[in-house]
Order: sequence, then structure tokens, then C-alpha cells
Amino acid sequence: MPTSTGLHHFKFLIMTITPWRSPLALALHNNRHQPYSRYFQLATVQADGRPANRTVVFRGFLDHTDQLKTVIDTRSQKTDQILHQPWGEVCWYFTETREQFRLAGELTLIDANYPHPELQQARQSTWQDLSDNARVQFSWPHPGETKANSEAFSPPPPDPANPLTNFCLLLLDPLKVDHLELRGDPQNRWLYLRSESQVWSTIGVNP
Amino acid sequence: MPTSTGLHHFKFLIMTITPWRSPLALALHNNRHQPYSRYFQLATVQADGRPANRTVVFRGFLDHTDQLKTVIDTRSQKTDQILHQPWGEVCWYFTETREQFRLAGELTLIDANYPHPELQQARQSTWQDLSDNARVQFSWPHPGETKANSEAFSPPPPDPANPLTNFCLLLLDPLKVDHLELRGDPQNRWLYLRSESQVWSTIGVNP
Repeated sequence: MPTSTGLHHFKFLIMTITPWRSPLALALHNNRHQPYSRYFQLATVQADGRPANRTVVFRGFLDHTDQLKTVIDTRSQKTDQILHQPWGEVCWYFTETREQFRLAGELTLIDANYPHPELQQARQSTWQDLSDNARVQFSWPHPGETKANSEAFSPPPPDPANPLTNFCLLLLDPLKVDHLELRGDPQNRWLYLRSESQVWSTIGVNP
Repeated sequence: MPTSTGLHHFKFLIMTITPWRSPLALALHNNRHQPYSRYFQLATVQADGRPANRTVVFRGFLDHTDQLKTVIDTRSQKTDQILHQPWGEVCWYFTETREQFRLAGELTLIDANYPHPELQQARQSTWQDLSDNARVQFSWPHPGETKANSEAFSPPPPDPANPLTNFCLLLLDPLKVDHLELRGDPQNRWLYLRSESQVWSTIGVNP
């Protein structure tokens, strides 16, 4: 255990800072004028072993963790894909600074029945933080089915305080992060890997 | 077989036009001022059954086909992934027009040994069409390995006429295309599916 004195304390702090958080925070800051800089592509695997890939919206990090938050509709196909293979890879390209983060890790679906009070609280506060426009989409007809008539897309607005049952918080807990800067000369690329003891290592690799 | 007279001929033409090509061409046109509108995210599956996802550059369509071209280095990890699971899903988000195309289909690696003269010719002309900057990257040190010293990234420029052996043309032959327009009210979404008899169907679905 680290002590609170001098060097030992300092070492402990260094080891627990996640090294890819700072370059990712910088990319988000430098690309903040583009609303789409908070969109990324999430790859999952279908039951037949084929990949699936779609754009989702970054909803920040789960408090005091490195887990990326996004929200999904339990009626969408990715729900079954994630139950079958709870692993995902995010590809996040920032157009202004020309850099890419690939984040691979375990996916957790926090749906209405998830038996964990703190995460259920996180699901509720994520729902509350959504815009009205984002929230009402969970009242729309079943995604992917033959298009319903237009009235079905003007439902009464759902309660902003209480998530609908098909509202699901999705967490990605990265185990490997690959950061590529196309602007370097040559390009710069770093690989961040988390060990079983939760310690992150960083290596510079060839682009 | 269709005849060349009147209605039969017309019907044949209708059936052989690929219905998603026109909206995709329009998206490329409307977003042409952003160089990154030609970048998309390609998801593949690793040997361990987990997904992988990265940004690649669209290099146009293979002549007289609906196959999307991109180029890869045979030394990169996606080569093995594609040999193991020759299926991919492209997610292509256009930032100006706020629309997404997801294209799922079979992947074909056209490497230096691919035994098909026409496709080998396509590999060569794709190499010739690359910029000097794109071509020289195939002379860089092995991707993903510990970073080499900077001189290794200034190799002599490769012959623009003859592709290096690690240069590979990658084709995606879509079987399913999912087009989402976020700007609609509500959003518009179409699903294009190719049957075994190579006929495309189109349905409007819920976003």
C-alpha cells in the first residue's frame, strides 16, 4: 500500500492516472466547435460472427471511472449483439486535428433491470441530461421495422425525470487504446494497454 | 432473358440499377469540400471473435461494379482478420448533410499473388492513382511494432508504376445498405437488400 508521505505517494498517483485521458481530453477540446466531434463509431459482433458498425453519441465518462457512456434503445439490434458478445471497439476520428482514437473494451448494458443502485442512478441522470429531442426518440416506433405513419413520430414527450424502460445506458471500459496523429512527421502513434493489475503501459509504435 | 424491345428492356434496366448508388453519390457531392468525407470506418472481426474498427480512405468503386475500393498494408492486423472472417461493415458518416450509410458485405483482399489478371490490373492502377505521400507509407517500417528511428520514415520513394508487394487492394461488395438521414422530420431511414438473384429491394424503415 502507498503511504501518504513523499515519493511513495507520488508514485501511486502516477500509476493511477490513466495516460490516454489527457490526449483524448485535448482532442475533445481542440475539436469542440464541431458538434460531431462527440460522435464515434462503435463496432460490435453479430450472433452470426459478422461485424456491425454505427455512429453513436459520446455522453461523457461514468463518474470517477474511465468508462465511456453512450445511450441506446434496447429495441435496437445492438442490444442482442452486445448480450451475445460483450466486447466493442470504438473508432473516434477528430476531423480538425486529424487524429484517431481506437478504444477496445468490455461493454455493459445498464437497462431498467440492472441490479446495481449506483449504475441505475447513472442511467437515470444520463436520461435527465439528454435533450428533449434525444429523449423523445425513445418513444418513437420500433427501430428498423417498416416505417410507421408520421403521427407515430409525434408522441407526447416522455417524463424527463424517469427513463423509459427501453432506455439503456451503455458503458465501454477500455482495455486497449490506440492513438494515431496523422499530422506528425511522420505520423505519431501510441498504444496504451491495461494490465490485469489495472496498470496502464504506453508505447510509441509505427503508424 | 430481357429483350431489347420496349417495356421488357426498360424493366431490365430498372432492375440492374443499384438503388443506393444515387443517394451515396449525392452525399459525396454535397460533402465534397471536406477531404474527410472520403474517410469511413471499417469494422472487421478478430480471430478471438472481438470486433476491430478503424478509419480508412474510400478509393472509389471498382469499374462497372458496386464494390468499394480501399487500400491496406498486408502487414497490418486487418489482413489476418479479413482472411479469418471475410466480412466487413463500413460506417460512413457525412458531417455536412448529417447522414449515415452502413454498408455490409464480403471483403476481398487483392494482394500481389491474387490470381486474376483484371483485378491485378485494378490493384496496379489503384497504386498509380495514390499520392506520393500515400504510396511512401508502404515503405515505412512494420505498422504496430515499436517505433523505429526517424530515418526509417524517410525511405526512397517507391516506383509509382509498380506496387510494392505489401500493397493490397481491398474490396467490399455490399449486400445490405442502411441509409439514415438525421435531418428529416422525423429522420428518414432506408434499408437496401440484395437478393441471391442480385436484385436490390428498398424499404423505408423506422430510424
